[in-house]
Amino acid sequence: MTDRPAETVVAADLAVSALGECRVDSPLLPLLDTRQVSVNYVDESDRVLLDDTLSTLVAREGEGGPLGFEPGGPRRKIYFDPTKTRVGIVTCGGLCPGLNNVIRGLVMELTLHYKVKRIFGFRNGYQGFIARYGHPVVDLTPDVVRNIHEDGGTMLGTSRGSQDPEEIVDCLERMNINVLFVIGGDGSMRGAARIAEVAAARGERVAVVGIPKTIDNDIPYIDHSFGFQTAFGTAGETILAAKSEARSAPGGVGLVKLMGRHSGFIACYAALARNHADFVLIPEVPFDLDGPDGLLEQLRRRVEVAGNAVVVVAEGAGQEHFPSSENGSDASGNAKLRDVGVLLKERITEHFAGCGTELNLRYIDPSYTIRSVPANPYDSVYCLRLAHAAVHAAMAGRTAMVIGRWHGRFVHVPITLAVSGTNKVDPHGDLWMSVLEATGQPVRLTA
Amino acid sequence: MTDRPAETVVAADLAVSALGECRVDSPLLPLLDTRQVSVNYVDESDRVLLDDTLSTLVAREGEGGPLGFEPGGPRRKIYFDPTKTRVGIVTCGGLCPGLNNVIRGLVMELTLHYKVKRIFGFRNGYQGFIARYGHPVVDLTPDVVRNIHEDGGTMLGTSRGSQDPEEIVDCLERMNINVLFVIGGDGSMRGAARIAEVAAARGERVAVVGIPKTIDNDIPYIDHSFGFQTAFGTAGETILAAKSEARSAPGGVGLVKLMGRHSGFIACYAALARNHADFVLIPEVPFDLDGPDGLLEQLRRRVEVAGNAVVVVAEGAGQEHFPSSENGSDASGNAKLRDVGVLLKERITEHFAGCGTELNLRYIDPSYTIRSVPANPYDSVYCLRLAHAAVHAAMAGRTAMVIGRWHGRFVHVPITLAVSGTNKVDPHGDLWMSVLEATGQPVRLTA
Amino acid sequence: MTDRPAETVVAADLAVSALGECRVDSPLLPLLDTRQVSVNYVDESDRVLLDDTLSTLVAREGEGGPLGFEPGGPRRKIYFDPTKTRVGIVTCGGLCPGLNNVIRGLVMELTLHYKVKRIFGFRNGYQGFIARYGHPVVDLTPDVVRNIHEDGGTMLGTSRGSQDPEEIVDCLERMNINVLFVIGGDGSMRGAARIAEVAAARGERVAVVGIPKTIDNDIPYIDHSFGFQTAFGTAGETILAAKSEARSAPGGVGLVKLMGRHSGFIACYAALARNHADFVLIPEVPFDLDGPDGLLEQLRRRVEVAGNAVVVVAEGAGQEHFPSSENGSDASGNAKLRDVGVLLKERITEHFAGCGTELNLRYIDPSYTIRSVPANPYDSVYCLRLAHAAVHAAMAGRTAMVIGRWHGRFVHVPITLAVSGTNKVDPHGDLWMSVLEATGQPVRLTA
Amino acid sequence: MTDRPAETVVAADLAVSALGECRVDSPLLPLLDTRQVSVNYVDESDRVLLDDTLSTLVAREGEGGPLGFEPGGPRRKIYFDPTKTRVGIVTCGGLCPGLNNVIRGLVMELTLHYKVKRIFGFRNGYQGFIARYGHPVVDLTPDVVRNIHEDGGTMLGTSRGSQDPEEIVDCLERMNINVLFVIGGDGSMRGAARIAEVAAARGERVAVVGIPKTIDNDIPYIDHSFGFQTAFGTAGETILAAKSEARSAPGGVGLVKLMGRHSGFIACYAALARNHADFVLIPEVPFDLDGPDGLLEQLRRRVEVAGNAVVVVAEGAGQEHFPSSENGSDASGNAKLRDVGVLLKERITEHFAGCGTELNLRYIDPSYTIRSVPANPYDSVYCLRLAHAAVHAAMAGRTAMVIGRWHGRFVHVPITLAVSGTNKVDPHGDLWMSVLEATGQPVRLTA
Repeated sequence: MTDRPAETVVAADLAVSALGECRVDSPLLPLLDTRQVSVNYVDESDRVLLDDTLSTLVAREGEGGPLGFEPGGPRRKIYFDPTKTRVGIVTCGGLCPGLNNVIRGLVMELTLHYKVKRIFGFRNGYQGFIARYGHPVVDLTPDVVRNIHEDGGTMLGTSRGSQDPEEIVDCLERMNINVLFVIGGDGSMRGAARIAEVAAARGERVAVVGIPKTIDNDIPYIDHSFGFQTAFGTAGETILAAKSEARSAPGGVGLVKLMGRHSGFIACYAALARNHADFVLIPEVPFDLDGPDGLLEQLRRRVEVAGNAVVVVAEGAGQEHFPSSENGSDASGNAKLRDVGVLLKERITEHFAGCGTELNLRYIDPSYTIRSVPANPYDSVYCLRLAHAAVHAAMAGRTAMVIGRWHGRFVHVPITLAVSGTNKVDPHGDLWMSVLEATGQPVRLTA
Repeated sequence: MTDRPAETVVAADLAVSALGECRVDSPLLPLLDTRQVSVNYVDESDRVLLDDTLSTLVAREGEGGPLGFEPGGPRRKIYFDPTKTRVGIVTCGGLCPGLNNVIRGLVMELTLHYKVKRIFGFRNGYQGFIARYGHPVVDLTPDVVRNIHEDGGTMLGTSRGSQDPEEIVDCLERMNINVLFVIGGDGSMRGAARIAEVAAARGERVAVVGIPKTIDNDIPYIDHSFGFQTAFGTAGETILAAKSEARSAPGGVGLVKLMGRHSGFIACYAALARNHADFVLIPEVPFDLDGPDGLLEQLRRRVEVAGNAVVVVAEGAGQEHFPSSENGSDASGNAKLRDVGVLLKERITEHFAGCGTELNLRYIDPSYTIRSVPANPYDSVYCLRLAHAAVHAAMAGRTAMVIGRWHGRFVHVPITLAVSGTNKVDPHGDLWMSVLEATGQPVRLTA
Repeated sequence: MTDRPAETVVAADLAVSALGECRVDSPLLPLLDTRQVSVNYVDESDRVLLDDTLSTLVAREGEGGPLGFEPGGPRRKIYFDPTKTRVGIVTCGGLCPGLNNVIRGLVMELTLHYKVKRIFGFRNGYQGFIARYGHPVVDLTPDVVRNIHEDGGTMLGTSRGSQDPEEIVDCLERMNINVLFVIGGDGSMRGAARIAEVAAARGERVAVVGIPKTIDNDIPYIDHSFGFQTAFGTAGETILAAKSEARSAPGGVGLVKLMGRHSGFIACYAALARNHADFVLIPEVPFDLDGPDGLLEQLRRRVEVAGNAVVVVAEGAGQEHFPSSENGSDASGNAKLRDVGVLLKERITEHFAGCGTELNLRYIDPSYTIRSVPANPYDSVYCLRLAHAAVHAAMAGRTAMVIGRWHGRFVHVPITLAVSGTNKVDPHGDLWMSVLEATGQPVRLTA
Repeated sequence: MTDRPAETVVAADLAVSALGECRVDSPLLPLLDTRQVSVNYVDESDRVLLDDTLSTLVAREGEGGPLGFEPGGPRRKIYFDPTKTRVGIVTCGGLCPGLNNVIRGLVMELTLHYKVKRIFGFRNGYQGFIARYGHPVVDLTPDVVRNIHEDGGTMLGTSRGSQDPEEIVDCLERMNINVLFVIGGDGSMRGAARIAEVAAARGERVAVVGIPKTIDNDIPYIDHSFGFQTAFGTAGETILAAKSEARSAPGGVGLVKLMGRHSGFIACYAALARNHADFVLIPEVPFDLDGPDGLLEQLRRRVEVAGNAVVVVAEGAGQEHFPSSENGSDASGNAKLRDVGVLLKERITEHFAGCGTELNLRYIDPSYTIRSVPANPYDSVYCLRLAHAAVHAAMAGRTAMVIGRWHGRFVHVPITLAVSGTNKVDPHGDLWMSVLEATGQPVRLTA
């Protein structure tokens, strides 16, 4: 272990911008690789370009060169002495397939590859650091985590909401923890950044590394967030069930509400995977309910022509149809959404009744059964590799960063950048166009 | 085709009782088996005993011999001339895995084995016979049905509720239909019996054969009703999701409402299949909510000790906790149930709050996604064999009966018997005992 | 515990025959049921009839009354004192889905319901009792077995072949084991019977209870053996793959070899489940290869007409086509089968070449991937209930018996009866007829 | 349609290199978009950079600027008049999950979006263009393809091997086909390039667009080839079965041979997905069999310590252990591989026998059951989007190119570039390192 404090260092003299420069000062300890793996150690000045479309790149050159991320991977020299390193792991926010896989991957890599001896699991999110909640700490060893990836959920428990970063750093100090892995969403990542700040301000040598979790796939600089493929695959099964229901009754309408507060990725992918949706409604594309080209009448016509229809709606879609009022926010600080599924159910029922059209509507809201399933094979591999990259980053002294995946490469993304925006479905891009073509829904559901 | 009317004939001179004697007078046409299958043709006097426990059997002997069913299977002589036979198929009531498999099996067997030329599918349940609903009739051929078993639901559509049997027989007469297969629940079977009566009263030679559908597995004389295994397997996945949710939050409680109006088979089997339920509530076993031994407090204690718990409740359970009032009944004539899931959700929330115990309750009501999945391999085989048995029965002139399965044999069960009772979980039997032992729930949840 | 030796007692004065009378003398200890379960304790004179077809029954009456089995289930009084009982569990023979579920069910029921304290797992079949093999004994507790049902195979390991029953009883004596559960096939059950005999001859009070394992579903008095449904469901996936292969190439033939040494149940059910087989070959139905109506030419014609075909063959089928010679037998004492899959592959290739017919044959032999999958939901429930019944039987002092399932009831079947025959597909029964009808294959593939 | 011949045009004056410049001269026809989709039409000079690591990029700048691909997507103007366009589709080479999804996606997009009227499916690969094979052409309409994605394989059939491009172009001329989609591997893509050349030489206006198929994931410039995720997920099930087998017998060794002629991606991903492999052998990493650090002895030691082990071997691995001789090549022109699975089985058996170590080896070769399964949800979406991109490219007059996916963007890759190399697992990269860490296998299996 070094005698210098951990801090976020920006290497100002690099031609590339500061993206991915989130390290704990200079590496001191060479990694004693007992397994003699001749891996390609990552060169410290390598960068993965942020934008690789030529026109953008040319424009950037006038501004000081292209933006780039620090690639992930093992370093020739590491910062922390594994024999003395004490590690904490915490999972925060809502469930997502793959949480247990990430925990397992971290523990296996720390123990078997780096020979770290002590790993603590903090229970129920940031509450686990705060004594008054009374959640006991879990010792994490290979034996404990060996089979957890076969279960959905998280063996550590989780909770929403932030806790005082000072208290959390108190806990880290008390337990002599040098490395903290935070698996959570953007709110949790902001919390992680504050923890890193507080620790740095106190002169503590602590690496705080995030693994971004977002079942909605809406965190930028991550091709597909872990669990996303599992989630939309499971959601597709629900769409299939809705179609079976709709086809089996006169005037059958299946209405499926899926996750997606700010982005409609799950709705789009699930709809394409099964090809049974007739209308897909996402937050990125506003729609009218009323009028001859509004959803209600378009849906009614589809049912009259085809005998049935399936509507897939992301939970964040159509919020413009609620009276703007004080919705407040949940414990994670997310604005509370109004229930668009229930609204649609009511309005569809009214509209069909008003037109004298027979309706058999089945409303399916499968959220819990999607987010709590075990990871599929792809996500299993992905979570494992994310965990490996996170361990390499932390052991090399990086902090206040998350592991991203950019163009097929694992990269180090500063937390500030990772929480700076929201990844959205481009209403003019090819994903949404494929949805329009596959569903045959009108381009504009507007009056 | 015979010149005598179809009617239910009871062979009074048999020592066994009349169970299974539901045939259209005497068989006239030998089956011209072009495939020369040397099957074991069923002897007309064979019976499958209704009760095979010795003590019961001995008791019965004083009353005229043991009760028995007519075994299913091909007959050496058949009643209807396949070249002239016109067949109708209808599916009624709620969805159940395997409906399409049964339709497919009927059409394939009628066409390929018996060489029947015309098969009509009536759409949306009994509505399909009534012109004013405007549902067109579907021509069913091997090409049309070849792949339908890969879909859930029913390709014919379905609806609840009865229609005037006179009008239905009018339709059958108009279309010269001799054989009608009704796939539906007990209400639909009562309708089928009335159709058979009306047809007989008019002197029409029509065989009406039912294939009993009950996702709840509650029709007597059918070991497991088709779709039941698929349903409880899918329900088990939901219990697993509920457990993952419950384990992942402080004070986690998963509450899963499953099908089961009068019987708790799905709840019991799904709970045993996954072994993650802590409490199983079924209509056959009353329970108290309040008091130290009532559900609420027992659940709270379980959560305090184990950190989480899963409650599985059949929809028909706990109806005693609602004020008895005029609930009315649905279109199928079933008494409307009050929503025990919502009641439990409210009462659990109140109780935990009152005790100051942390609670994170997830309520999952997966009904549509269970009943609309495709049949699993076992149910696929079972539906196919049921369909074969139904075709054999109809072609041999049986009517006003359903295909049952009794002790591993397909049997002919008079509709009147099939709808005479409800198959229930025996609160003193080994299934319920296995549930008690596997869950560890108290034998009596009573104050 | 009694002071009288365990032995197989036949209650000669019962009107019913001796089936199921395999108990350790008189029960002495009332079951101290701390959970106060008001189950229906089974009456000692109840019997489940062996044959419930009336004609057979009447015939039997002249011979001393109908044959019956002792029903399974908990007894009001038990033979062994749970606090002093020491239990052994062993799995023998080939793998089968559900082995871990049975082990888990036994341990859970013994521990949680009967409060038995010591349960030993013997490793790798009967070798585990013999010191020179050096397999350590495993302590089985609820913690050890909690999640094993999620894995295929058996956590105890298994092996083929018998061991000296004297040595095995030596081991049981040395370890003071009173109850031994043997999970295995008919060879292993014969071994279990010999162990019971040796123990009885030595005056040891040992209950030896078998849970019959046969992936082929060929043990009599067991409706469906555990794992069978899982196995044929998995096998059906292979048939689907074979069909996809066959359809995708000119002259495509998919050839799938499935389990089934003496009986073709898996082949029949798997073929019906997926409906993609064109020929099903089972041990019960001989077939010719050559001649115009033999398999080879019939297959060639099918390929010419339909473009492709799938052949499903049980491993025990067609043995008549090998020169009768000294095949020897394997370690379990089973006669070695010649490889009918390879034979068919060669002969089909020759025949098509001789006729100048294009052939693209894909031969799939999936055995290991079928027998080693985890149990499906139905088998999971079934294994659990089998285990409960086995524990009830053993604690009540039954020995030299296996748990069977007869007409929906768990029953006690003497080992001698269980190994006395082989359950086979009836070539004149409705299962085979359904196969013929579903595949459209000729009734006789004979020259 | 234009009056100028189709040819591959290289826009020499662009600063970026010629990558992706494979178009039929100048676009003439504006797309009459009846659906008024305001998609982001792709600008003709956009390029997706080929290498986005900064150091590489800087180096390239001295050589004429960074290499880039033409992005995929709809063009503002198209080359072919949809009302007159006649399209051909052919699938070539081995099976791969998703073939039917691609066919379906092409037909749906051509018909519903571009309103193309005539689409022909050529059967059984390139044979379908040659009259003497006698394969009839299939008319492809939305009705025909609606459900084909639920089946594995290819509804068009496939075959290996090339056919005379002159004869193929004869066929295209005779049928007035303007657009040809070839779904196949690198051999088939070379064939497609020759077809494009011949057509251009004859002055025919034909766009030949490839959708690269490689279950091995070894075609460059395609992040993951379609079907790859489905394939490795299915392969992972086999590894699980092998582990269950290995764990269930003394000296248990599971040996699984997977696809991978030149690259070990499936072996690596499948091993990581299930985490049950102990040794992974791929073509990219040579290994010794003999010696203390060779595979055989390392495996034996693993079995002695852990009781069992699983070996996963890609079919192209270890070819150095066969005597170099004339192996010849198959109909596709691929060098014939020797069977490394059988070799390992023999050598492992010998080695264990020589050391007196007990061995129960199960060899599993699941190839057909992996490649013929239906696409999983991810691959379903991916195939649909690939098909959309291919249709956009063809309608815009691109030819002699394939649809690639580079850094999350669909791109146009010249066939010559797509077949110029083989995508391989980097033995020094993080995928292989994750495999080493997850399996714990020695870095070098060398004597």
